Amino acid sequence: MRWRKIPDAVIRRLPVYLRVLDEAIREEHKKLISSQELGDRAGVAPALVRKDLAWFGEFGKQGVGYQIGYLINELRRIMNLDREVCVGLVGVGSLGHALARYHRTRALREPSFRTHLVALFDNDENKWGQMVDDMEIWPLDTIDDKVKEMGLEVIILTVPAEHAQNVANRMVAAGIKAILNFAPIKLTVPDDVQVADADVSLELQRLAYYLKN
Amino acid sequence: MRWRKIPDAVIRRLPVYLRVLDEAIREEHKKLISSQELGDRAGVAPALVRKDLAWFGEFGKQGVGYQIGYLINELRRIMNLDREVCVGLVGVGSLGHALARYHRTRALREPSFRTHLVALFDNDENKWGQMVDDMEIWPLDTIDDKVKEMGLEVIILTVPAEHAQNVANRMVAAGIKAILNFAPIKLTVPDDVQVADADVSLELQRLAYYLKN
Repeated sequence: MRWRKIPDAVIRRLPVYLRVLDEAIREEHKKLISSQELGDRAGVAPALVRKDLAWFGEFGKQGVGYQIGYLINELRRIMNLDREVCVGLVGVGSLGHALARYHRTRALREPSFRTHLVALFDNDENKWGQMVDDMEIWPLDTIDDKVKEMGLEVIILTVPAEHAQNVANRMVAAGIKAILNFAPIKLTVPDDVQVADADVSLELQRLAYYLKN
Repeated sequence: MRWRKIPDAVIRRLPVYLRVLDEAIREEHKKLISSQELGDRAGVAPALVRKDLAWFGEFGKQGVGYQIGYLINELRRIMNLDREVCVGLVGVGSLGHALARYHRTRALREPSFRTHLVALFDNDENKWGQMVDDMEIWPLDTIDDKVKEMGLEVIILTVPAEHAQNVANRMVAAGIKAILNFAPIKLTVPDDVQVADADVSLELQRLAYYLKN
């Protein structure tokens, strides 16, 4: 159970490194990058870059730096992004709608994007059959079928707070293993299901801490 | 400079504790809470709750627990939420629009909310004067005046990636001290300005790491 051992703060930085590396190879056709440069671009101290990557192996050569293509492949493998990860979104209100479109636009522009939003769900029958870009909104009750058919593993949850726990239970029962939760409540899920809280107000309050009085 | 010393992972959990405490006092009229219960509700191990709070002082009594009202006041003070923090949003596209409405709805329902969204900005003149709920969309160029008039300190940035750094520079020049960045780029800002990345794709990629192969 490697994910128990490595601090989540390290895991949080891996996607940032991956994004920097992707840009460097795609836009500048760079082949090598130093931990100094990778750190500068990722907003992380170079020593911390080296320490973070050392959790997973020895990827760089002292005085030479990291081979970008190799490091991208390794990071993708470590993060399970060497395959496509299928994502659904539940609750197509204004926030859900906006996030769906945002995610699709991003995915089109960035080929390295491996988290694919492929399904939208709502329990409002007036929304069933409506399209957001090229995705149809399905009844929430079809979730079991869609998990099987499409291999959904991750759900973006944008339902009102009072429904969030119930919907999360339903998702877990259907086999979903990770939830990105925009509802302002703490979800209770089994140990083998991961929840990330994307509650905007928590981030704003965190930022407030760093303001000077 | 206390904020250099305390790990950001601790700071991330404080708003969650505050939310749990607010709910306990508002909905259940509880006066005391144990670290066990606070931890259970916040999804954090009780020992970590005690360790987190110990960074800031001694708030609980062994065998008695925490006085909720007192702990709320102390946490608010620590987090600069014993006053109102004025927030603006720049870039009123579909995501910005949805986030603005989401934030306002939350603020109405939760009186303990101290981060107040008070101003919307866009550089598209067709949007100037339009209302989102009861907020008008202002030209981006009015930012200096609004920072002074309204005491804006924090900005939610929902502009396209290619404009994000320029707009961030403009915000910093106007005196903004914290940015919640939804654009998928790493912003470069002076040391005294805080940036939190709210990029949804980074969170999804982080969740992917925890999926089993």
